[in-house]
Amino acid sequence: MPRTGRRPGNQDTREAILESSRKAFSERGYDGASIRAIATGAGVDPALVHHYFGTKEQLFLAAIEAPINPGELLPQVLAQGIDGAGNRVITLFLSVWDSPTGAPAVALLRSAVQHEWSARLLREFLITQILRRAMKALDLEPSEAPVRASLVATQIMGLAMTRYILKVEPIATMPAEAVVRLIGPTVQHYLQDPLDF
Amino acid sequence: MPRTGRRPGNQDTREAILESSRKAFSERGYDGASIRAIATGAGVDPALVHHYFGTKEQLFLAAIEAPINPGELLPQVLAQGIDGAGNRVITLFLSVWDSPTGAPAVALLRSAVQHEWSARLLREFLITQILRRAMKALDLEPSEAPVRASLVATQIMGLAMTRYILKVEPIATMPAEAVVRLIGPTVQHYLQDPLDF
Repeated sequence: MPRTGRRPGNQDTREAILESSRKAFSERGYDGASIRAIATGAGVDPALVHHYFGTKEQLFLAAIEAPINPGELLPQVLAQGIDGAGNRVITLFLSVWDSPTGAPAVALLRSAVQHEWSARLLREFLITQILRRAMKALDLEPSEAPVRASLVATQIMGLAMTRYILKVEPIATMPAEAVVRLIGPTVQHYLQDPLDF
Repeated sequence: MPRTGRRPGNQDTREAILESSRKAFSERGYDGASIRAIATGAGVDPALVHHYFGTKEQLFLAAIEAPINPGELLPQVLAQGIDGAGNRVITLFLSVWDSPTGAPAVALLRSAVQHEWSARLLREFLITQILRRAMKALDLEPSEAPVRASLVATQIMGLAMTRYILKVEPIATMPAEAVVRLIGPTVQHYLQDPLDF
């Protein structure tokens, strides 16, 4: 198999590492999966995993074929604090999903829900790469943060399903600014208002 | 192939009708698909379609293997009017999805998002069997009803994804009553509050 300029290394080895990592991330979760165990599963040295993929986070993003790196995108949105965060989160979400990056994002969501194991990978992505970062950056009260984060997840996953997969009108073709005005306040409510649970 | 007591008729013929109907409902939508065209696609007489499946609505529910008939469940929830409808809608949703009926509902959602054509079937189900009924029963202002209905759809589809498919905690295992208290008000907001779009 020819090497590409972009991706160094043997493609079979790379694929074996990705396969092993998907299994590990799905079975043990992001936190529980170690580079060492992933390397063992692929029959390679851990150093090779780092050489090909960098950090565990970078390997995870490659394993699930994440179209974006939330670690790069989220900080700019969350750094401005909780005021208006609801609108900024929806604006960011739409700027990714309405762009050419949206097609692979839809493909990821489609494949993620097909099987229990791939759904677990998407859950790990959502929790470790997005929700955990957001809870920390927004400095949410720790006893409430997981509830608030999962409520925000319901609204955003539902927007993804309705606008991009099911394409329910008028939400499917509404201008991004209108979607932000309609749904941003719900996210803000989940982030900030007193919750009764 | 042996006949079952429950389902009269030749199984191959039944399956041909279901296949033809899935194609028609997906390509032309629920309203655009006619029993006549479905019968032609299956190479049978329209009377046979009615004989096997009853009304177009019953055929549609059979075609997508709907675990429930919203036409039976929704009226009791919506008849009480818009006050408190948000909480009642989420209570009904959870009573179905948290019950043994939830497993086929999850299976339906999983299969629906895999392909463009099956997503269209789920969209038609959502719009014609649930949202349209709700808009009518709640007597929403016609110019706003589709926006309100699709916003409610974002919240409910997202709850389904997060609680049953991705299983994001704590929303995945939270008691139904707590989910109603947290998410019911959002549905009420989408149904009733002034919207800026």
